Amino acid sequence: MPELRRDPITGRSVIVASGRAKRPRPQHDNSDQNRKDAEPCPFCPGNEALTPPEVWSLREPGTRADRPGWSVRAVPNKYPALEPRGAAAARQEGIYRSQDGLGAHEVIIESPEHRTDVGAFDAARWGEVIRAYRARLAALAGDPRWRYVLLYKNQGERAGATLEHAHAQAIAMAEAPAAILEELSRAKTSRDSAGRCVYCAMIEDELAGGARLVTASANFVALCPFAPRFEYETWILPRHHSAAFEQITDEEGSELAGFLQNFFLRLHRVLGRPPLNYVILTQPPRQAAGGYFHWRMEILPQLNRAAGFEWGSGLWMNSLAPEEAARSLRDAL
Amino acid sequence: MPELRRDPITGRSVIVASGRAKRPRPQHDNSDQNRKDAEPCPFCPGNEALTPPEVWSLREPGTRADRPGWSVRAVPNKYPALEPRGAAAARQEGIYRSQDGLGAHEVIIESPEHRTDVGAFDAARWGEVIRAYRARLAALAGDPRWRYVLLYKNQGERAGATLEHAHAQAIAMAEAPAAILEELSRAKTSRDSAGRCVYCAMIEDELAGGARLVTASANFVALCPFAPRFEYETWILPRHHSAAFEQITDEEGSELAGFLQNFFLRLHRVLGRPPLNYVILTQPPRQAAGGYFHWRMEILPQLNRAAGFEWGSGLWMNSLAPEEAARSLRDAL
Repeated sequence: MPELRRDPITGRSVIVASGRAKRPRPQHDNSDQNRKDAEPCPFCPGNEALTPPEVWSLREPGTRADRPGWSVRAVPNKYPALEPRGAAAARQEGIYRSQDGLGAHEVIIESPEHRTDVGAFDAARWGEVIRAYRARLAALAGDPRWRYVLLYKNQGERAGATLEHAHAQAIAMAEAPAAILEELSRAKTSRDSAGRCVYCAMIEDELAGGARLVTASANFVALCPFAPRFEYETWILPRHHSAAFEQITDEEGSELAGFLQNFFLRLHRVLGRPPLNYVILTQPPRQAAGGYFHWRMEILPQLNRAAGFEWGSGLWMNSLAPEEAARSLRDAL
Repeated sequence: MPELRRDPITGRSVIVASGRAKRPRPQHDNSDQNRKDAEPCPFCPGNEALTPPEVWSLREPGTRADRPGWSVRAVPNKYPALEPRGAAAARQEGIYRSQDGLGAHEVIIESPEHRTDVGAFDAARWGEVIRAYRARLAALAGDPRWRYVLLYKNQGERAGATLEHAHAQAIAMAEAPAAILEELSRAKTSRDSAGRCVYCAMIEDELAGGARLVTASANFVALCPFAPRFEYETWILPRHHSAAFEQITDEEGSELAGFLQNFFLRLHRVLGRPPLNYVILTQPPRQAAGGYFHWRMEILPQLNRAAGFEWGSGLWMNSLAPEEAARSLRDAL
């Protein structure tokens, strides 16, 4: 059983999930000796038996679950960081606090094609992927046991991916992380005292000729944030206040599909196909202040690295001003 | 001038230092096309003119500053993340808060030999390196402008190093980072309410047969922390309460030199020569609660990576229990 531990000195929370040590090592290693290409890819059609049974899929009419015929497929993670069975109570032993690593951990296989990266997704592919993200976030957020749901993607070995077949992951947790509660608290304070949503204020500023605007459509905006951790870090947000990604309509989903295709085309014009992470941050379910949240997708290219300075200070260092990053991405098309 | 920016949504602080974009790219790239080995190493003896003038060195009697003859040499960073000139006041423009990136940024060149990594340091080399760390931390902490001083090292491209010649860095800041103030506040609460230093309690627990003890000497202990971010993360602390690294005596410095040589020998027996960061966390100067701090050196091998999960949640995930890591390191010699 994974364990959620809190460091008594720093207060940091860490999931210690020893079972994950058994998962495959990265396939991207260039040395022939370590290549795993010979092993069958568990995410390719025909290999469905190598994953736990699917919990959701988009598939051709008449095809059966856990058989080929799918275009997007969600399965429990075979090497979960959190598991749905366990005790909710925390244990205190001397100065040490821990609890069972309660939660859910899923994989969303985004394409039947091996090695497709998001830069190669067309709008139709993005449309299906967004439907899958929405369905799994809605299902996990709807489960009364969970108080936070995160969707994230690691693409490229340098960005922490262990399997190269295009996939994202969703994690549900029994408690919202401190950083999310802090953000929610800041959002509430800002709206209750200054009278406006700080996210909406940021979006209005950038749409009114801000230096960090990348692009916008009827309902979405892409901007480089004022204090980015990563070079070319970009946030995509709904222009009108909306707390939960999983509440987007079919029509908005179609618009977002084209918007993402356009954004990744810009990114790849500027950077080639960089290793990257992205995350979808949505309102924590079952929080009184949840509605103050404004969902966003953070796209985090992995060019610069967090290193000694960041680990030791908790601050970040970035050599590329977001105003310059936004200009490059704006001018790319 | 670098800028210290605060994100209005998350509250995160980021140093935006565009001048650093001009620094050399990593020398470790394996492709011949990108190799920079042909460029002279600015840290090798004979190339002293390629760095700013030295602020401290250990050198042979009769040799002149900024000439060969040194064994350890400290210079201002040519591409600083923070600079000592600028205004202290913060600027607020709409929702955005920023201020000049005030501080100091130094490089400590740890050996005249190119490419020496810490696994190859003997006790005599460590002794000189510790003298340099102590001297630069004391000088920066003694400057009334600074309220935090961090020493850190990045070794290996995967750990964020841009130059391979052995070196560490010291950064002084005009304000202590939020994470350090939070740790200090936790330490004060623990000692004032529970009546004991939480760091000392942790050390006592591990010395009394704790599962996370790696090794100990008369005055130092190495242990794997209860909630480690990284596989094989190890903390080295003084056994007796001591707030500031820069206050170690010559005798303790000699003991620590042998202790570090012993620890890195263990690490390399288990892992080869892994990419790694280490940081020295010392009491923030000019803080009323500073004495509650207990200095430590955190050694952070870079095997697992922070990725989408960590960026999106602020939590950490680790597949190796620290009890297992400690056992391997304990049994390595």
